[in-house]
Amino acid sequence: MAKKYVYLFEEGNAEMKGLLGGKGANLAEMTNIGLPVPQGVTITTEACNDFYAQGSKMPEGLTEEIKEKMAILEKKIGKKFGDTENPLLLSIRSGAKFSMPGMMDTILNLGLNDQTCQAVIKATNNERFVLDCYRRFIQMFSGVVLSLEHHKFESVLDAQKAKRGVHYDTELDAGDLKEVVEAFKNVVKRETGMGFPTDPMEQLLLAVQAVFGSWNNQRAIVYRRLNQIPDDLGTAVNIQSMVFGNMGDDCGTGVAFTRNPSTGENVLYGEYLINAQGEDVVAGIRTPQPIAKLQEEMPAIYRQFADICNLLEQHYKNMQDIEFTVEKGKLYILQTRHGKRTASAAIKIAVDMVGEGLIDKKEAILRVEAGTLDQLLHRRIDPSAKFNVIAKGLPASPGAASGRVVFNADEAEKLGQAGEKVLLVRTETTPDDIHGIVAAQGILTSRGGMTSHAAVVARGMGKPCVCGCEAIKIDYEAKIFAVDNLVVKEGDIVSVDGATGQVILGQVSMIDPKLSAEFQSLLGLADEIRTMAVRANADTPADAVKAREFGAAGIGLCRTEHMFMAQERLPIVQEMILAETTEDREAALDKLLPMQQSDFYGILKAMEGFPVYIRLLDPPLHEFLPNQEELVVEITELKCTKGDKNILKEKEELLRKVRQLHEFNPMLGHRGCRLAVTWPEIYAMQVRAIYQATAQLIKEGVDAQPEVMIPLVIHEKELKMLRDQAVEIAKTVQTEQNVKYDIHVGTMIELPRACVTADEIAAHADFFSFGTNDLTQTTLGFSRDDAEGKFLQDYINKKILADNPFVVLDQGGVGKLVKMGSDLGRQANPKLSVGICGEHGGEPTSIGFCHKIGMDYVSCSPYRVPIARLAAAQAAAGGESSVSTK
Amino acid sequence: MAKKYVYLFEEGNAEMKGLLGGKGANLAEMTNIGLPVPQGVTITTEACNDFYAQGSKMPEGLTEEIKEKMAILEKKIGKKFGDTENPLLLSIRSGAKFSMPGMMDTILNLGLNDQTCQAVIKATNNERFVLDCYRRFIQMFSGVVLSLEHHKFESVLDAQKAKRGVHYDTELDAGDLKEVVEAFKNVVKRETGMGFPTDPMEQLLLAVQAVFGSWNNQRAIVYRRLNQIPDDLGTAVNIQSMVFGNMGDDCGTGVAFTRNPSTGENVLYGEYLINAQGEDVVAGIRTPQPIAKLQEEMPAIYRQFADICNLLEQHYKNMQDIEFTVEKGKLYILQTRHGKRTASAAIKIAVDMVGEGLIDKKEAILRVEAGTLDQLLHRRIDPSAKFNVIAKGLPASPGAASGRVVFNADEAEKLGQAGEKVLLVRTETTPDDIHGIVAAQGILTSRGGMTSHAAVVARGMGKPCVCGCEAIKIDYEAKIFAVDNLVVKEGDIVSVDGATGQVILGQVSMIDPKLSAEFQSLLGLADEIRTMAVRANADTPADAVKAREFGAAGIGLCRTEHMFMAQERLPIVQEMILAETTEDREAALDKLLPMQQSDFYGILKAMEGFPVYIRLLDPPLHEFLPNQEELVVEITELKCTKGDKNILKEKEELLRKVRQLHEFNPMLGHRGCRLAVTWPEIYAMQVRAIYQATAQLIKEGVDAQPEVMIPLVIHEKELKMLRDQAVEIAKTVQTEQNVKYDIHVGTMIELPRACVTADEIAAHADFFSFGTNDLTQTTLGFSRDDAEGKFLQDYINKKILADNPFVVLDQGGVGKLVKMGSDLGRQANPKLSVGICGEHGGEPTSIGFCHKIGMDYVSCSPYRVPIARLAAAQAAAGGESSVSTK
Repeated sequence: MAKKYVYLFEEGNAEMKGLLGGKGANLAEMTNIGLPVPQGVTITTEACNDFYAQGSKMPEGLTEEIKEKMAILEKKIGKKFGDTENPLLLSIRSGAKFSMPGMMDTILNLGLNDQTCQAVIKATNNERFVLDCYRRFIQMFSGVVLSLEHHKFESVLDAQKAKRGVHYDTELDAGDLKEVVEAFKNVVKRETGMGFPTDPMEQLLLAVQAVFGSWNNQRAIVYRRLNQIPDDLGTAVNIQSMVFGNMGDDCGTGVAFTRNPSTGENVLYGEYLINAQGEDVVAGIRTPQPIAKLQEEMPAIYRQFADICNLLEQHYKNMQDIEFTVEKGKLYILQTRHGKRTASAAIKIAVDMVGEGLIDKKEAILRVEAGTLDQLLHRRIDPSAKFNVIAKGLPASPGAASGRVVFNADEAEKLGQAGEKVLLVRTETTPDDIHGIVAAQGILTSRGGMTSHAAVVARGMGKPCVCGCEAIKIDYEAKIFAVDNLVVKEGDIVSVDGATGQVILGQVSMIDPKLSAEFQSLLGLADEIRTMAVRANADTPADAVKAREFGAAGIGLCRTEHMFMAQERLPIVQEMILAETTEDREAALDKLLPMQQSDFYGILKAMEGFPVYIRLLDPPLHEFLPNQEELVVEITELKCTKGDKNILKEKEELLRKVRQLHEFNPMLGHRGCRLAVTWPEIYAMQVRAIYQATAQLIKEGVDAQPEVMIPLVIHEKELKMLRDQAVEIAKTVQTEQNVKYDIHVGTMIELPRACVTADEIAAHADFFSFGTNDLTQTTLGFSRDDAEGKFLQDYINKKILADNPFVVLDQGGVGKLVKMGSDLGRQANPKLSVGICGEHGGEPTSIGFCHKIGMDYVSCSPYRVPIARLAAAQAAAGGESSVSTK
Repeated sequence: MAKKYVYLFEEGNAEMKGLLGGKGANLAEMTNIGLPVPQGVTITTEACNDFYAQGSKMPEGLTEEIKEKMAILEKKIGKKFGDTENPLLLSIRSGAKFSMPGMMDTILNLGLNDQTCQAVIKATNNERFVLDCYRRFIQMFSGVVLSLEHHKFESVLDAQKAKRGVHYDTELDAGDLKEVVEAFKNVVKRETGMGFPTDPMEQLLLAVQAVFGSWNNQRAIVYRRLNQIPDDLGTAVNIQSMVFGNMGDDCGTGVAFTRNPSTGENVLYGEYLINAQGEDVVAGIRTPQPIAKLQEEMPAIYRQFADICNLLEQHYKNMQDIEFTVEKGKLYILQTRHGKRTASAAIKIAVDMVGEGLIDKKEAILRVEAGTLDQLLHRRIDPSAKFNVIAKGLPASPGAASGRVVFNADEAEKLGQAGEKVLLVRTETTPDDIHGIVAAQGILTSRGGMTSHAAVVARGMGKPCVCGCEAIKIDYEAKIFAVDNLVVKEGDIVSVDGATGQVILGQVSMIDPKLSAEFQSLLGLADEIRTMAVRANADTPADAVKAREFGAAGIGLCRTEHMFMAQERLPIVQEMILAETTEDREAALDKLLPMQQSDFYGILKAMEGFPVYIRLLDPPLHEFLPNQEELVVEITELKCTKGDKNILKEKEELLRKVRQLHEFNPMLGHRGCRLAVTWPEIYAMQVRAIYQATAQLIKEGVDAQPEVMIPLVIHEKELKMLRDQAVEIAKTVQTEQNVKYDIHVGTMIELPRACVTADEIAAHADFFSFGTNDLTQTTLGFSRDDAEGKFLQDYINKKILADNPFVVLDQGGVGKLVKMGSDLGRQANPKLSVGICGEHGGEPTSIGFCHKIGMDYVSCSPYRVPIARLAAAQAAAGGESSVSTK
């Protein structure tokens, strides 16, 4: 047997996460630094992978090795597994390389059977406690290993409570529990046709296999897909001697973060329950006490725990999420890991830790996952607005959201996919609700604390969440919830504020986010490190102001088509489109000129001192005309009803022109600079407007820096022709207005032909701006409008594509063309400035790619500018965030 | 002065076409082999280019050099330019590297003025002849150099004829011509404000500049665009001493081919006119005599000419097109060049010349322009059909055509672009009609011979043409032509048979072409030389049979969607599309299975022994559903008229589904293998049908060789998944049917992503078939349906693109991706077979590209298979056709 599959905790360390899983590696590390960790062993992820490689069979030698290592463990602890005198009981927990909370299954109290049960009763002198453990064990084991449904056991428990006329499990006495255990065993027999396994070693081996098997349960697969965790890592299995938090009031269990995971504040943050097992805290079934209260209830334990927290934070140089249990006045640490945190907490902790000298600036930058900043850049409830707060729960995940109330995850997913904004309302959430949480705008639960499932998951996803809002009474059947006399029905709109815990009836007006001082500090650090400039995509002076506020150094994409869409201009634009002669077209363009000029005046002024890349008209002209089908309906109706002949004639004439401009594939049609190849006067007007605005500003002493961007170029000759025209007009305006300015003309690179002939094109360009949205559409042959609604999801579900390529740049395909285009362009024109202005310009991994291939800048929506600043710094610092939520 | 701009004929040779133009180089060559060529000089194309480089000014030193060389010429000839005793008269003719017939301007009799005119009268003792020359010279010079309109002079001539009551120019006597000359001079004075230039050297220099200028006249530009001749070659100017074919009945002029340019038959073929100048023959104004008749009229001249023809053909090893003039019983050769010929003549001549030992096989292959074979592969009139021949003209360019009669080129172009088939009917054509000829299906003229403008141009373009059909009387005004009492109006349908000269009223049924014996021989030679296989695109057994007839070695693209379109199947296909569940879909597919199987049975049987690449379903499913707009109209009408509620409901339900499947950009939508990613059962049915048909055939002893082709692949995982499914089904059928066959699965490469990741994709493919139509659409971002009707022409007119990229592969852009895909694929999978199945697979220059990058095969429509065989051979022989029409 060449492979070592089973490690004693003292044989491992924190670096061995790949082999021992995160939990196992940290248990080993803590064991080695002398913390009170219940002893145990870890079965490697390799064993799990070999299990799958052999068709879900135990790999050769594993069973023997487990037995060997169990023998060592028994010796060290002084208890024997299955012993009828002093039996060893175990907890079996999964632990993959990346933490997957709630996704994998756990079994506690393994080793119990009728005989060992008696032995433990004798040892503890607490029959009720032991029987309670026994019934929990049967229940958990049956669920995880035997795949029996939870409710089959719950109904037994309920029946027993009903029979005894009590409300809580804790009110059942030992006699009751004895009956329950027997009834549970009968359930197993009835459902499986076999008795509940009594041999502890058989229990253990079955449990190990079940943990292996749970690596591929549906929830785990979904979680991995959502979090982009590879499927072939496998999970380790941690076998640890049991300690009990539920042996009486000198016992307890809890979870704590070394700093506040919601705000980042440097105080212990957590919850505990007296006389409970660990699962009771995280499952959110009983609402626990805040950790500060432990100082009163168990001051010595609290002090010891606080010291350990401090030690672990110094040791790992990172905020820790620690599970502990107190068994009869003795503290045990069951787990430590880097704590998940909200984006704002991540920022504060990173910045604080630099201040505390724990980590350096570069490390601080890498400590914040750029993508998560999004949640801080969301809008929040306008504090000056009037709104009707109907209840208050725990502020579990910051941000505000409004949506239609739904009461189950499937419904949330259905409506969410249909484009509805929904708010998922549950008594509590479980891993089975993940798909609903993904689809919802926000989460509201009536039970559970700050570390309940809903809270943890929502924070991870950056979704607003209010937890433990006990004031709301949910009736799933009737699809309503009630707050006192107020009844809220499914479909009603409710808002939640995850920063305050407020639950609000109806829609609430929201305001734009502001950057906190820590956020500003972090971005300051990022700016020191990053090498790429960050610009914004902005079409209006208001957007430009917002972009500067967020630190954009210029506008990388100013679209001009929205200016054509303005209601009062549309008739003139239509006049221009429908013109039959160049003269008529120019007459309409002449009317548009002063309007465009004032647009550019405003935006160039707002961006004083920074470049503004103005993209000339891009969409096909029929986008500015009435809808063809609606016209057809109107005409058919007019004909049917013998309506006004003149109107009919007019509509028919309009329809004729709309048809003339109709395109089968508008995405690949008469648009972009093709419009100017056919009608040069359109771009001529726009260029004149740009430079007239520039001249006007320069005369007013404003440093206006326009750059003209030609879209959809396929050929150097096309660009040369349009560039020549633009330069000529720019010079003419210079002479007319007697001012001086630099003239820069560049191009979007957004078609494969432009990428492969970028060397030729670069000869006529001052800059390349990669339009990766269109480039993705043409490179993959995916119309975004069609793909996202129709087949893209199939591609992701069937794992052909890892991500939506319109969100995350397809580096393996589109990226090759981008790199080719950038390299060829630079080789031909070393002065060429190269950047990206597609949506990918605000997506962290795509930004990393842009850095890697040496781009000069990225441009993204104003709200993503901070993300881009951080992601660009992380790329320059040589990696993605080190605090992955994975 | 570093550059030599002017060459005496004896200083040049046939190799110097680039510098001296084709005409000049051949005049030099003939001079040097001792033929009776009137002496002269050639001004180089370099001089023309320098002329343009200097803003249309004579380059430095050119004027002086012309004068120097004129002095040498005068000395050799013994006449002096402008001399009042023995004046030298000149012909000035353009001559570019590539012959551009009728495109450039010629001036004869230059050097005449009132004084030299008298001197020539004295020398020739023929006043009428000299005055006729003089008036022709004024007319030509005024047209070419002074840009005065022809009709201004014609009306003077007409007035003089009217005044004298005569019909023909020849009936005017010397006195009349004297008046005409004076009147012509007055026209010049009136129109230009200046007198007609009298200084012969001034005439010469103006004429030279006019020839240079004519390089960029509109006709020349259009011709070059049509024939893909670069604009920067420039034209040479040939200055040659005049000889006169119009000095009396011992004079004449003619044009002859050394072999029949229409059939290739090895006999002298041409025409002449007694007492005429060269322009009279080619202009088609007088109908000339066949060359054989010269043997009777001037036997000695005929013999001498025939000997020279023979000598020239042996010298050039190619069929020659020779102009000659007889001046007072002495033969002069004015020009020789490789003769244009129809495709069938080119074939016969090439094959014959191999037989005669004049050229080798490789040369023979290069002698036929592959593109021109198209005309032989057109359908011709079914000889067994009944049709109404209303007239007969000269069989000027073979092939048959039907179309609506139009009487002018603009109208022909307008209707042609609108998709109408038109027949251009003119008394005669001139270079100004080129655009109409391009747009027409065929040409019919009432005047002019086999070498008239219409005949030459039509043969060059491979269009059917009937010339000199004097029976038809055209009335342009009334837009009719009459044949005796029959009146044919504009818009009536008429057919012409350019092989027989027949003019037929109405549409005629046509039959498929057959390959002549010579054609078969040529293709046999081609097959010996080429290295690429040639396959056909064919979807039916009938097409497959045709493809084999034309020499296709297999089917490179068998589309399966047409099989879905068959009327009786469409309801089942719709049932499949509208199915809401997998079961319903499979039920419909089960009904389609036997139909598809019988389709494949037929086509595999027809292609016995050859591979058949079957492309699985490609188009988006909504193509099989009713039109959305029509449905909307029906529903609106039903609502308006309060029609049947049930029908309305049914239609509304259908509309809902049609809308669901509607796509914004169907080209980039849910089609190709994406259909199978979503609904694997569709491809599963098709693959089963393919292999069940194969099994059936193998049992019948037929060697069926299907290969499964997956369209629109973007990612290796996608192909792997679909390949695995196909292989599994193929193996299942093998087991079920107990037969053995090879299983080949490959893919179309038709998206840029497939090209740049071809190495990954090749791991799962037995072959790559480049779909260059879709690849062109996505690489350029051009929807073919939209581009060709809307903006593509602008791109060609503005010289951004040289050709329609859907016709001629865009080697500079799309070609780079094709090469990348092919190279990457081969590197990763050396056994990969690589080919092309887009329309480009039948286009000669694109085929050349395919050869160059090392493809294994091309596939094209059955009718283009012979073209592809030849073009593939030419590529292997190292070049395009050597007999370019350029």
